[in-house]
Amino acid sequence: MVHKVAIVGGGSWGSALSVIVGESVERKKHLFDTSVKLWLFREEVNGEDLAELINRQHENVKYLPGIQLPKNIGIEVDEKGKMCVSSVIIQKILKIPVAALNGANIAPEVAEKHFCEATIGVQREQDGQLLKQVFNIPTFHVNVVLDLQTVEYCGALKNVVACAAGLVDGLKFGTNTKSAVIRIGFLEMINFIKQFVGEPSMDTFHESCGIADLIATCFSGRNRKVCEAFVNGGRTIEELEKELLGGQKLQGPYTAAQIYGALERRGLVDKYPLITTVHKICSQQWEPKMLIEILCSQK
Amino acid sequence: MVHKVAIVGGGSWGSALSVIVGESVERKKHLFDTSVKLWLFREEVNGEDLAELINRQHENVKYLPGIQLPKNIGIEVDEKGKMCVSSVIIQKILKIPVAALNGANIAPEVAEKHFCEATIGVQREQDGQLLKQVFNIPTFHVNVVLDLQTVEYCGALKNVVACAAGLVDGLKFGTNTKSAVIRIGFLEMINFIKQFVGEPSMDTFHESCGIADLIATCFSGRNRKVCEAFVNGGRTIEELEKELLGGQKLQGPYTAAQIYGALERRGLVDKYPLITTVHKICSQQWEPKMLIEILCSQK
Repeated sequence: MVHKVAIVGGGSWGSALSVIVGESVERKKHLFDTSVKLWLFREEVNGEDLAELINRQHENVKYLPGIQLPKNIGIEVDEKGKMCVSSVIIQKILKIPVAALNGANIAPEVAEKHFCEATIGVQREQDGQLLKQVFNIPTFHVNVVLDLQTVEYCGALKNVVACAAGLVDGLKFGTNTKSAVIRIGFLEMINFIKQFVGEPSMDTFHESCGIADLIATCFSGRNRKVCEAFVNGGRTIEELEKELLGGQKLQGPYTAAQIYGALERRGLVDKYPLITTVHKICSQQWEPKMLIEILCSQK
Repeated sequence: MVHKVAIVGGGSWGSALSVIVGESVERKKHLFDTSVKLWLFREEVNGEDLAELINRQHENVKYLPGIQLPKNIGIEVDEKGKMCVSSVIIQKILKIPVAALNGANIAPEVAEKHFCEATIGVQREQDGQLLKQVFNIPTFHVNVVLDLQTVEYCGALKNVVACAAGLVDGLKFGTNTKSAVIRIGFLEMINFIKQFVGEPSMDTFHESCGIADLIATCFSGRNRKVCEAFVNGGRTIEELEKELLGGQKLQGPYTAAQIYGALERRGLVDKYPLITTVHKICSQQWEPKMLIEILCSQK
């Protein structure tokens, strides 16, 4: 059976993945239809339709400028804006088993085919090997784990830790403090998933979706960048998001607020000092320097 | 009983630790003699004795310039050069139980009292709490684990991974590749300790001595720095060590060679591609770009 691949979402990450998948399906014609659809919302760039621009130039000029997309990627537009993010919602709508790919995958570097790794979390063993074939090429190594929720939650939680890393940078503290924050954040990620999501396999945290994605995001991600600027900028997170990210969205402060709500309802705020502090600082209830005070006052 | 603390080794790290311990013993006079000795080898700086210089200026002008050492730190000189590194050797000579402190502790940042963490690995539960008291101050948080060997081996092995991270930087690959290298190196560290040293507690790898020290070293350590320069410099590791480190020593290439020897004797070279590649590149048997080729060719 020849499988058909579609990519839903044409931001920097969906576009970067289309570079990988475009090459992969050409290498594995016995398994895949070599024509891949990339779905995106209708939007205009300088008065011109972005989808038409990409179809003509094979370049996502707004979200991944400078990168040539493979010729076998065709653009489709989602007029009604029904695209969605969580695997649970996607599965309800599409009624097919859903998996999650996550890793140390800064989009432009993936698109430039610098060597990197990713993790696919699946619900059913039998889906894993086929999905691995969709993405695996020599410069993009994919590992499969039977632990969808951990993969997905790592992808969300790491952004909160990256906010803390950005605050450390903005406060002009060095590598020791930043490494400590990443470690404490990593432990809070593990504890949160254990407490709220299910029994994760500890090995999953040592996959690319865990430790490696966390490192990449804390050094080069957009949450780090905005939170660094937030420390000294006199502007809100929302203002900096518009100013610095060119249409991309920021997930960390929003995720921190959601998680803080869940912790508060269960009386667990004290057990997650880093996530709590990120939420309090990003929502302008606390000053950025409180991050260091909270760290020093623990234990 | 009031305990007496001495620090053996007056390089950047011993000097930075003396800043922490100098403050700590002043805070805990009920436990410690407030006068601390810092032992170092006799050497000259610009024709003057380094020990005398430090005793007069309270500053280690060679290894930690710009940092004021506490007044309660006294300098002692080891004339015969008998100081040594491994806990096993130290224990044989001193005939007291030995522990190891390791963490994400770039020396100048520790000395400037930026918040950071460290791990003390002990052999006997009863030593842990006292040693924690020696070092713990609000800006330096110490955790104790009953796992001396893992703490000590992490400290050696991380330098090999940092060499790989430096090669990635020198080859101008980005954060994704570097994060992948750190992750693969982390797994090789765990496997090596399991295979050659004993049954480590997995929790130890999530302490500061494990993941956090690895991150700090791979982004800001001296092994990273020299290996980055090695890629394009046309000079040997030994030449760069002299040129870039101002008298400090480089451990990564030496450790990689030692480990490679052990792997070869046991026929295990294939199981440790990253450590093997670092050894082959640093000993000029392979070109630096082989690192990327090896990564792409795995699995």
